[in-house]
Amino acid sequence: MNFQTYQARRQELRKAVHGGAILILANAEAPKNYADNVYPFRQDSNFLYYVGVNEADMAALLLPGGEEILFGREEHPDDLVWHGPHAVLSDHASASGFAGTGLRKTLAGVVSDLCARGVEIHYLPPYRAERRFELAEILETDPRTVDGGVSQILIKAVIAQRSIKTDAEIAEIEGALAVTAEAYREIMAATRPGRTEAELAAVLQRVALAHDRQQSFNPIVSVRGEVLHNTSYANTLAEGDLLLVDSGADSARWYASDITRTFPVSGTFTSQQRDIYEIVLAMQEAAIAAASPEKTNRELHGLAALTAARGLVDLGLMQGDPHAAVEAGAHALFFPHGLGHMLGQDVHDMEDLGDLVGYDEGDSRSEQFGLAFLRLAKKLQPGFVITIEPGIYFVPALIDQWRTADRHSEFICYDRLHAYQGFGGIRIEDDVLITADGARVLGSGIPKTVAELESVVGR
Amino acid sequence: MNFQTYQARRQELRKAVHGGAILILANAEAPKNYADNVYPFRQDSNFLYYVGVNEADMAALLLPGGEEILFGREEHPDDLVWHGPHAVLSDHASASGFAGTGLRKTLAGVVSDLCARGVEIHYLPPYRAERRFELAEILETDPRTVDGGVSQILIKAVIAQRSIKTDAEIAEIEGALAVTAEAYREIMAATRPGRTEAELAAVLQRVALAHDRQQSFNPIVSVRGEVLHNTSYANTLAEGDLLLVDSGADSARWYASDITRTFPVSGTFTSQQRDIYEIVLAMQEAAIAAASPEKTNRELHGLAALTAARGLVDLGLMQGDPHAAVEAGAHALFFPHGLGHMLGQDVHDMEDLGDLVGYDEGDSRSEQFGLAFLRLAKKLQPGFVITIEPGIYFVPALIDQWRTADRHSEFICYDRLHAYQGFGGIRIEDDVLITADGARVLGSGIPKTVAELESVVGR
Repeated sequence: MNFQTYQARRQELRKAVHGGAILILANAEAPKNYADNVYPFRQDSNFLYYVGVNEADMAALLLPGGEEILFGREEHPDDLVWHGPHAVLSDHASASGFAGTGLRKTLAGVVSDLCARGVEIHYLPPYRAERRFELAEILETDPRTVDGGVSQILIKAVIAQRSIKTDAEIAEIEGALAVTAEAYREIMAATRPGRTEAELAAVLQRVALAHDRQQSFNPIVSVRGEVLHNTSYANTLAEGDLLLVDSGADSARWYASDITRTFPVSGTFTSQQRDIYEIVLAMQEAAIAAASPEKTNRELHGLAALTAARGLVDLGLMQGDPHAAVEAGAHALFFPHGLGHMLGQDVHDMEDLGDLVGYDEGDSRSEQFGLAFLRLAKKLQPGFVITIEPGIYFVPALIDQWRTADRHSEFICYDRLHAYQGFGGIRIEDDVLITADGARVLGSGIPKTVAELESVVGR
Repeated sequence: MNFQTYQARRQELRKAVHGGAILILANAEAPKNYADNVYPFRQDSNFLYYVGVNEADMAALLLPGGEEILFGREEHPDDLVWHGPHAVLSDHASASGFAGTGLRKTLAGVVSDLCARGVEIHYLPPYRAERRFELAEILETDPRTVDGGVSQILIKAVIAQRSIKTDAEIAEIEGALAVTAEAYREIMAATRPGRTEAELAAVLQRVALAHDRQQSFNPIVSVRGEVLHNTSYANTLAEGDLLLVDSGADSARWYASDITRTFPVSGTFTSQQRDIYEIVLAMQEAAIAAASPEKTNRELHGLAALTAARGLVDLGLMQGDPHAAVEAGAHALFFPHGLGHMLGQDVHDMEDLGDLVGYDEGDSRSEQFGLAFLRLAKKLQPGFVITIEPGIYFVPALIDQWRTADRHSEFICYDRLHAYQGFGGIRIEDDVLITADGARVLGSGIPKTVAELESVVGR
């Protein structure tokens, strides 16, 4: 990716807004416990995609006539002292192919002139509060009203572009996955009874940090895999536990990866664990085998759900017709989340742009428990990169709720679930590229089958 | 620290605002690249100090009559499913000694009633943009004006309380330092030519994360120690380099630590490096030996500066009377920053509360280069915990600026500085408790002398 990449992306984007201007803002630093103690900087993903410069407080303005201006901060005479030799605004403009530059403090005036000439300013939804103040200052409006002025035209154009990954972007994601593969091999080798979740989370992060990469999201490293939103690391691993690890490192150009593996702390699955593991693996394999531009992701989700229901009927935990069980939503007791989501510059790619990323206009999320959490339902297209991440969990609170309500008892064998108290949960996740006629799992070298896992965990 | 600790702190604080109410807000989650992908949560330090609950989106309201209400979010029926068993609002109220609780969404109404009764609402300065929206909603005002309404009375009362550390707080800081000591021993052992800064930063972070602790701030791990604001890890260590490491882990109750060590990548100081190192160590030892309630921190800074000037005159890099050189500010070419800052719940403790933390009313920062960066000038008091962190740096850009301007050439031997091109910088930092009659360096086990460092680096 060089300056021509970014120029071409912007040129394509400008076609969407006839006569309008496009404003894309960089992120600001994010204060932690006071203004100057900040979190590690994360650039806005849209700014990365269209400008590619990893610096705070910048802005890109694309004018109707084709003129492009990159705004950045003024250099202070002391900068060289405190920050050492560093790229300045003109360097950033060269790297990203901007002919024009301006000081960030002049942006509001430039935008004001455009507005006075009747030019519409298109901007994307803010997801940080700081951005609302910035937009309000630039647009001379109230920060409480800027969300109402976001450009639906721009949102759709960005989604259309960012959804289809180029070879260079796929190479970035595979670069992220190479680091993630190393991290998984290390964490698997380090897993054994007596270790803490925190120690293992630290192993995972050490590998990414040693490559100078951030995590794409806060990793899950937990023996309580059935707690889906779990980012604490308070437990000690015990013989018999399953460890669920859901994590991913960024690439050098800040593309995400997102992998989940679940494996036995002891290094060997119990037969109960293996039975459930093989069902989850079959769910994932079925979805991957079916993935192609012929299918919607809603269909893949349904296929994974059906595979789960069949497997659980075979095991005696469900009963009746698997198709009917899935239709009714009974499988969601065990598989309560969606099959996956878009992946790219963000781990949930473009989630800041709203539901149009995953749902076509006129389509919307199901209200059925489980399916309601499916982030991507659209027809797949060549160039989509998606996660395929089915799971089966035994969530005590959910089982109790459903059993008490006698919910779906024609499909669920509640009396057989006592034996799974404390089982936890299993999820398996890979990042998958949709190709012209099928799909390809990205990355390699992360153990996944029972035999592969048993040969590396604790060794 | 139990619920009585927090009750007593709040009782003391309430004395400051006769007839007023006090509003202390918890932090919200901080979005990274979209709303749901958040940075690791960091609670507001004032909320930690007065409430001690590490959960987002809460609020504490202290009423004039002595009533205290803790506000938190409503439990959703699905919470147990997604988050597993967890503490709820009533648990948090017990842990922090609140008799009353309320739903967070009712807070604005309660405050509105208070305002209608003429009760003044005292609140602290916001440092995150999100907080401005929250305050505006609670106070029914414009988010752009909330900064103007912060309570100076409350700021002063909080500074008075938080400045004096109790034994329990000192134990927390020493708990943080125990993890930090382990991290320094590991990073020193792992240092050798060919390693990258990123690999060593990863070692440092691994140790903290393995103890389930966050870093108090983004660590500096750099062979370019003369670049003061440097948190990139792009260099590879070479024979002859000095590595400067400035970092600290949090304690279990989120108190900070802040330590700097500088050591040779090869494991052995060159004679040139040792000469400068011994001057910096002498600067630090002089300041620590002089630290007591008899002194202002401005005096300690001056003592460190004088020690630097004397040492550099002895080395032939400066000339003339050291006192006169310091008076003129010539030493700041080599020691361009302040001696240190308050340490506590924040690494720059209470920096969100402004300059009154470090400067008495009527006093203000010097405009002299170097001294202008001194964060703490006040008279020291028993119970203060401060950092003492002198340094000597050879900043090529700064030396060029001054030489070209012929600045302080009566004190600086510019022609001798060519031999220090590429030297880098040395800083040594410890966390120091002011006692009734002197000072005590907190923590232990972090090598500091030349002999100690040479016996551990690379081994």
